Amino acid sequence: LDYQHVQVPFEITLWIMLASLAKIGFHLYNKLPSVVPESCLLIFVGLIMGGIIYGLNDRSPPVMDSDIFFLYLLPPIVLDAGYFMPSRPFFENIGTILLYAVVGTIWNVFGIGFSLYGICQVKAFGLQDVSLLHNLLFGSLIAAVDPVAVLAVFEEIHVNEKLHVLVFGESLLNDAVTVVLYKLFRSFCEMPTIKTVDVFAGVGKFFVVGLGGVLVGLIFGMTAAFTTRFTKDIRVIEPLFVFLYSYLSYLTAEMFHLSGIVAIIACAMGMKRYVEANISLKSHTTVKYFMKMWSSVSDTLIFIFLGVSTIGENHEWNWPYICFTVIFCLIWRALGVLVLTFFVNRFHVNTITGKDQFIIAYGGLRGAICFSLVFLLPDFHRKKLFIAATTVVILFTVFIQGMTIRPLVDLLAVKRKRESSPTVGEQIHIRFLDHLLAGIEDISGHWGQYYWKDKLEYFNSKYLQKLLLREYDQPKSSIVLLYEKLERKHAIELAEAGQLGHAPSPPALLNNNRTVTMDKKWEETLNPNVLDNIQEILARNLYRIRRTGPAYNRHTLPGESEPVEHAQEILILRHKNL
Amino acid sequence: LDYQHVQVPFEITLWIMLASLAKIGFHLYNKLPSVVPESCLLIFVGLIMGGIIYGLNDRSPPVMDSDIFFLYLLPPIVLDAGYFMPSRPFFENIGTILLYAVVGTIWNVFGIGFSLYGICQVKAFGLQDVSLLHNLLFGSLIAAVDPVAVLAVFEEIHVNEKLHVLVFGESLLNDAVTVVLYKLFRSFCEMPTIKTVDVFAGVGKFFVVGLGGVLVGLIFGMTAAFTTRFTKDIRVIEPLFVFLYSYLSYLTAEMFHLSGIVAIIACAMGMKRYVEANISLKSHTTVKYFMKMWSSVSDTLIFIFLGVSTIGENHEWNWPYICFTVIFCLIWRALGVLVLTFFVNRFHVNTITGKDQFIIAYGGLRGAICFSLVFLLPDFHRKKLFIAATTVVILFTVFIQGMTIRPLVDLLAVKRKRESSPTVGEQIHIRFLDHLLAGIEDISGHWGQYYWKDKLEYFNSKYLQKLLLREYDQPKSSIVLLYEKLERKHAIELAEAGQLGHAPSPPALLNNNRTVTMDKKWEETLNPNVLDNIQEILARNLYRIRRTGPAYNRHTLPGESEPVEHAQEILILRHKNL
Repeated sequence: LDYQHVQVPFEITLWIMLASLAKIGFHLYNKLPSVVPESCLLIFVGLIMGGIIYGLNDRSPPVMDSDIFFLYLLPPIVLDAGYFMPSRPFFENIGTILLYAVVGTIWNVFGIGFSLYGICQVKAFGLQDVSLLHNLLFGSLIAAVDPVAVLAVFEEIHVNEKLHVLVFGESLLNDAVTVVLYKLFRSFCEMPTIKTVDVFAGVGKFFVVGLGGVLVGLIFGMTAAFTTRFTKDIRVIEPLFVFLYSYLSYLTAEMFHLSGIVAIIACAMGMKRYVEANISLKSHTTVKYFMKMWSSVSDTLIFIFLGVSTIGENHEWNWPYICFTVIFCLIWRALGVLVLTFFVNRFHVNTITGKDQFIIAYGGLRGAICFSLVFLLPDFHRKKLFIAATTVVILFTVFIQGMTIRPLVDLLAVKRKRESSPTVGEQIHIRFLDHLLAGIEDISGHWGQYYWKDKLEYFNSKYLQKLLLREYDQPKSSIVLLYEKLERKHAIELAEAGQLGHAPSPPALLNNNRTVTMDKKWEETLNPNVLDNIQEILARNLYRIRRTGPAYNRHTLPGESEPVEHAQEILILRHKNL
Repeated sequence: LDYQHVQVPFEITLWIMLASLAKIGFHLYNKLPSVVPESCLLIFVGLIMGGIIYGLNDRSPPVMDSDIFFLYLLPPIVLDAGYFMPSRPFFENIGTILLYAVVGTIWNVFGIGFSLYGICQVKAFGLQDVSLLHNLLFGSLIAAVDPVAVLAVFEEIHVNEKLHVLVFGESLLNDAVTVVLYKLFRSFCEMPTIKTVDVFAGVGKFFVVGLGGVLVGLIFGMTAAFTTRFTKDIRVIEPLFVFLYSYLSYLTAEMFHLSGIVAIIACAMGMKRYVEANISLKSHTTVKYFMKMWSSVSDTLIFIFLGVSTIGENHEWNWPYICFTVIFCLIWRALGVLVLTFFVNRFHVNTITGKDQFIIAYGGLRGAICFSLVFLLPDFHRKKLFIAATTVVILFTVFIQGMTIRPLVDLLAVKRKRESSPTVGEQIHIRFLDHLLAGIEDISGHWGQYYWKDKLEYFNSKYLQKLLLREYDQPKSSIVLLYEKLERKHAIELAEAGQLGHAPSPPALLNNNRTVTMDKKWEETLNPNVLDNIQEILARNLYRIRRTGPAYNRHTLPGESEPVEHAQEILILRHKNL
């Protein structure tokens, strides 16, 4: 038996296997996951495993390594989050999200830090040796809402898209603030005296960390998109580039002490539309499903490790400090959300309701990021107290808040997510309104979001698409893509139900001329790029149905050169109408 | 800048990125990959990189770590090979493959070992200190044909399936022989005296290593299939199990000193049909494409590392020994193939032609396995000579043989692979012949392959399928699966060409009664399981087309409860006919 030789991969594989089997186990009893969030169950499994290891070895089970967490477990989850982020609600609410993420987190850090310092002054608790700086350092790590925990809970409760994006976006973007404040206070703790210039340097650093992360992410994202221009002949490695470049962006950002989370989010959101247009459909399926699978496994492992690491003798149970930490976390977050939302609502028509505010405040779950940061603290005599407090806050938020949030959402009747995807008609209307509002903003001289969106879209179609998309893959508008997707889905459904007929549908024949004349009206309202696509697809479909319908058989495939012919005939038809 | 922190993942990612970009680079010039096999180009890139590293650092570039190769790079390739192995030609030729893999490899080991020992006796070459055992040890590592190299070359030249499976199957299964002989001779080298019992133990060990590998693989494969029975509610982690269990089978086999390659092949081939039936279509796409991607990256990295490791000062250039090694490798392989094929052809109707024999002998490429094994040799004073000889043999076979095999295949007009996949008609005929031959073998009392296949199929449908497949997923025969696949493909093509009509095709209506009566004739020849499936699918399709055709619209989906109704109506129809 040669265990040494295979130990590392064998144990990693076994951990992943355990995590996956635990996941399957929960779903065998259908009622369980609908009452208790999966994250709680996984922590519970971890606690049991930690207990077993502790019992057998009689020493603390191994703690989750911060390096493993930050380098291997966190990136897949953040990549998944960034890649599947609904970009429209995200950018529509970017101001609010940033306010919550930046100002809200700073508010929480200082609020929690100063109030805990106040508690430390009470002689009865025996905490006078914890300095203000240490309290602020602790505040900086405990204040940050955790994207992994938030995602795990919010994915199951299906609140409306805006609310989801507010909580989730905040939890992602506060990383920049957390990184800066945490490192700032940590270095302050080790400095003999603090000068004013250091404080200003810290403020400046925040912009560097955040914007630098965005820049690194965008550079790698654009490079990824550019690379996939050339993969036409080797489709098999296409999915790889999505993973490689986003991971590189994360590592590069971490290397330069920038925010890795912000970088990977920017990379994923930046490359998505170009990569999707360049790679094949099968590669895209692989990317999507593999990403989901990977993030799901990472997520599972994190919660199990969190449970395992909780067991042991790393804790100093000073209950007053711990209890006040939990209370202050709740109070300051609630206050912060109330105050910030008050200002946000003054500048928005579509306000954040009281119910939404409650869920935002209540959804401020803490998780593995706090946990890893507290273990990364330099050794000092109260580190074990901080670890204990962090553990209790995480368990409290994940268990108590995580388990009660679903009933509360039901009770308050918070607006839910719409079930169906938008129809082609809706998409056309949304796009129409976008153009209209951009025009209004342009005329009124107000540089609002529609104006910027329009400018960005122009820059995109004028320069970026030409650079990043393959030439023969004409850029398609989202409406055309949606239409194609619906058609494909429909075809598969037909095939599976065995209803695949080969003759044309009569209404399509009758509508033929009417549609061609409608084309001309559209020409005046839509931009020429979109119009070309719609015309092309209509031309192809209508022509095909009319001509090749009855004569079709499986062994003759539609030729490659035909579309040109059809387009010509459509042209002739239209000229006759004129 | 904190490079230390991210070094490991950063460098791994960069290597993979380099490999992928090199692959893209080759394909930018369309002519290059059609003349020079990719493996040669990659080794060439590796040589250049090695040269650069050597030039800059002035010391040998790092050699590919044998552990990394065997634990991380080899498994994905073998898994891919096993999973996509065409099982029919493989099992039809299993006897021949085993003969080549076992007897052929032993023949080569001893042939090369003894003849090199002969060369060592020539005083002029200054090699008298290389003992017979060392020569045999070297023979055991240089004799084995390498699956990675064979796959890289044979995937591009598209010879007929039988020839491909013979060479490729041999290269995979000879692993058991190589492992045993290599370890045997290595331990002999360290023993003071060798007893006869050790030799017999070695022979016995071969069966343990080979059959043990198969057993471990099958156990993990069946467990994987069993696990995917329960993944209906969490489709997202389904693909994971395919990778986890097959990797575990490899690691477990390696841990017990069994053949990991044989284990992973057995695992992949064993689980494939059950897993595919259990998991969703999207998960299956992910498994397939991710596996291809991963093996392609591993393959690329191996060849690049091979090139990098070649540069440096690890070599002792004793040219007589090296040249004779190359010559003996060629001669003994050619002789082995000739002799073994002579016996094989005496017992088979479908003989291996002279051209095929030439390609089998010529396709005996050596690769990274030999290379890793030679570095794993215990230190002794002639190790560098062995490394040099191995490097030259690998470069000779990959470059000279790899580059000339395609022109030779063209020149000899070796039978190529058929381009199209089998039609439903062909499948039905093949299955019919299988049953017929199984019956003939049963009557004549000859326990041939058809007899065993039939018994295995019976065991499969009677016990295994019930255990491993989900109940509601009725096991489908391959004909039904093929039909569904063709229909789906067809539907997507129709959707993409815009020809999706919603009315029934007239011929289907006319054929309706005829097909129903044909059903009864089939009943007598086909086994009831297959028949049920065909009937169900025909019943559903014909009924649907006839009834719901013209009234169909996109917003009403075919209901779940209808099939029962249809089956009933079909039953009534048939009763009327009777």
